[in-house]
Amino acid sequence: MVKITVLYGAPADPDAFEAYYADHHVPLVHKMPNLRRFEAARVVATPDGGEPPYYRVAELWFDSTEEMQASLATPEGQAPGADVPNFTSGEVKVLIAAID
Amino acid sequence: MVKITVLYGAPADPDAFEAYYADHHVPLVHKMPNLRRFEAARVVATPDGGEPPYYRVAELWFDSTEEMQASLATPEGQAPGADVPNFTSGEVKVLIAAID
Repeated sequence: MVKITVLYGAPADPDAFEAYYADHHVPLVHKMPNLRRFEAARVVATPDGGEPPYYRVAELWFDSTEEMQASLATPEGQAPGADVPNFTSGEVKVLIAAID
Repeated sequence: MVKITVLYGAPADPDAFEAYYADHHVPLVHKMPNLRRFEAARVVATPDGGEPPYYRVAELWFDSTEEMQASLATPEGQAPGADVPNFTSGEVKVLIAAID
């Protein structure tokens, strides 16, 4: 399996971020072809009590690189990535990772 | 559920990192009390083709914050965190995140 990991920096307006994210962005993610699993999480702490470097972590699992690439080649697969600038003010990092 | 997300920066010696990680570190993680699920993944790309900001992503899921805290209060729960400096040369970021 492979996954796309999205690390969201702290937004200027968390309430606006949360509303857009839940009402508009996450539904777009669920329309991606071949998406096997989606998990969204809100960072609540770090083990040493320091300021968390990210605000949210989202992950999208696919059965294979081929399934992921096929998804990202469709309009529905491209929509979530294209939507990210519409609700983020902080830094966003996106990784593609192969599950061990 | 809650999860601990560990973001590993690029190691100076990837082969040494991989050997220690697989043979020593991951077995320690699996001994953590209350651990519900563990997933290790190697970053292979970024969507824009840029240099990935992290080398590996590891995630540890627990049923609740209480279960996680109880785990981290035991010697077996503390062992993986204490082991991290033994095999990492790059930056390591650790997040605690609540699943939506």
